[in-house]
Amino acid sequence: MQGTIMYAPGDVRVEERPDPVIVHDTDAIVRLTATCVCGSDLWPYRGIEPVDHQPMGHEYVGVVEEIGADVRNVRVGDFVIGSFMASDNTCEVCLGGYQSRCVHGEFAGAGGAQSELLRVPLADGTLVATPGMPDADLVPSLLAASDVLGTGWFGAVAAQTGPGKTVAVVGDGAVGLLAVLAAKHLGAERIIAMSRHESRQELAREFGATDIVSERGEDGVARIKSLTGGFGAHSVIEAVGTQESMMQAIRATRPGGHVGYVGVSHGVELPGEELFFSGVHFHGGPAPVRRFLPELIDLIWNRVIDPGKVFDLTLPLSEAAEGYRAMDQRRAIKVLLQP
Amino acid sequence: MQGTIMYAPGDVRVEERPDPVIVHDTDAIVRLTATCVCGSDLWPYRGIEPVDHQPMGHEYVGVVEEIGADVRNVRVGDFVIGSFMASDNTCEVCLGGYQSRCVHGEFAGAGGAQSELLRVPLADGTLVATPGMPDADLVPSLLAASDVLGTGWFGAVAAQTGPGKTVAVVGDGAVGLLAVLAAKHLGAERIIAMSRHESRQELAREFGATDIVSERGEDGVARIKSLTGGFGAHSVIEAVGTQESMMQAIRATRPGGHVGYVGVSHGVELPGEELFFSGVHFHGGPAPVRRFLPELIDLIWNRVIDPGKVFDLTLPLSEAAEGYRAMDQRRAIKVLLQP
Repeated sequence: MQGTIMYAPGDVRVEERPDPVIVHDTDAIVRLTATCVCGSDLWPYRGIEPVDHQPMGHEYVGVVEEIGADVRNVRVGDFVIGSFMASDNTCEVCLGGYQSRCVHGEFAGAGGAQSELLRVPLADGTLVATPGMPDADLVPSLLAASDVLGTGWFGAVAAQTGPGKTVAVVGDGAVGLLAVLAAKHLGAERIIAMSRHESRQELAREFGATDIVSERGEDGVARIKSLTGGFGAHSVIEAVGTQESMMQAIRATRPGGHVGYVGVSHGVELPGEELFFSGVHFHGGPAPVRRFLPELIDLIWNRVIDPGKVFDLTLPLSEAAEGYRAMDQRRAIKVLLQP
Repeated sequence: MQGTIMYAPGDVRVEERPDPVIVHDTDAIVRLTATCVCGSDLWPYRGIEPVDHQPMGHEYVGVVEEIGADVRNVRVGDFVIGSFMASDNTCEVCLGGYQSRCVHGEFAGAGGAQSELLRVPLADGTLVATPGMPDADLVPSLLAASDVLGTGWFGAVAAQTGPGKTVAVVGDGAVGLLAVLAAKHLGAERIIAMSRHESRQELAREFGATDIVSERGEDGVARIKSLTGGFGAHSVIEAVGTQESMMQAIRATRPGGHVGYVGVSHGVELPGEELFFSGVHFHGGPAPVRRFLPELIDLIWNRVIDPGKVFDLTLPLSEAAEGYRAMDQRRAIKVLLQP
């Protein structure tokens, strides 16, 4: 099969690789209909995380091609979506809603989902089948549910977004934009998107943002405060993962408010004393996408939400390298790859 | 009046000071029935926080002696308890339950509560009157409600303590011990007190601890995990405020669990990446004691809880210096001072 390998920072190649095979009786092999490049793939691409001949990709939708002997919940021919983290969905942590930290969990993208085929471990607990074969126009939205929508959604839930709340979103990548969509769906009264890019501001508004703040850092915090009677937002979703964005999120939240952080932390050190006196609630981490998948698939299937709009560039899998370049240069919000 | 001044680290003196007077129409002057030394008073006593001729004390119960022209909710002659943080109890932050971060808030102990008289700002929003004059044996428990009980209670609430939960408490000072009492009252199934001191272990058991763990740091974490099927506790209350205790609390909590931290942070830096992947909820800060005061007074008045047991040494106010020494040397859990 064709698969994507990051040889080194900035060096992404699509090449012939061995087809994945069933390793454990709980595995499934999925033939991918669509896959994509994640904002987190840019960390190694930019040399911020080490990388050496790494199979890339962890977002996937497609058709089950083969199942292990113990797989019961999905069948060959099913159209399925799974989280980037495989989970048994039966352990105490999964039952508590934290499938991304399943005691038997493993990274579903280990084999590299930017490819034609993917071995998904713990298929019964990881994959969710759609009611039937989706219309082609639903595929991008279903693909988004695999990570970026589920992550934005978790951010909004972790930030306790809901009716009567003013919500601010730090970060205008696909996760931040979909956090706006989630906040809207969860009933937030006011949604402030922090973005300096016109095309992203536009999509944020389309997803439900009522206000745009283009300032960053302390200026951004001051702006959020001035928009919220000096108190700060009730809920702030952090979707970047840098020191600046984390502090911006904490400082923009009112005492007793909630920060939901889903940007993968890189080099962040949180000052304990400031966090203590901030009085905020702080929750986040790798999103338990599996918790939300049934609901998200339902909302997409019934065309209530259209998260696939974050894909503003579609390329054949063979052009994955150009997809990385487009995202790195912020020419594209998110790139869909067609195997 | 007689009042306590910390001249410098380790140098505490009780001396004649001017009687406080009404400064604002919202003030009240309270003649103190009892006051005490707080674990947080030991930070400057030990030279970890700067101190220079500081009036000390922020925990108080007593009888209202004088009120400002605008005070409506308490009357001269009322027996009252107030939080260590004064609050209007009417602003948006107070109404949200975070009176310790009231937009008009100020430190109620500015005048020094280890004294005969105290000026309490924002009396209407800060003080709560008891149903009548308390029996003498209730005074220590009512005094505890002013900070140490309210703080332990907030820790337990922030850690989402409740039925079916396994709760671990890091820290066996008065706050930690009262967090055990709070966890018990809030219905926790299992309460693990982390303590190496026999007398404190005993009081922890009396307050409701079902297990004692004497190990600390990584060993303590391993012990909590082994007691909880490898998962970690659902709820962990941090009542110390050091780097070690914070990391111990985070690491002892299962993914999706809740850390309630009420130890005042000193020199703590939280590693963002570890916090991210821990998947815990993290909430704490200066306790909004005022939120809990009516309920706590009711529980004490009706002799449902007896938090006053944390006072294992009672001294006349004139011997405050000995009170500090006893707590510093851990000869006493908490020292009550009688003006």
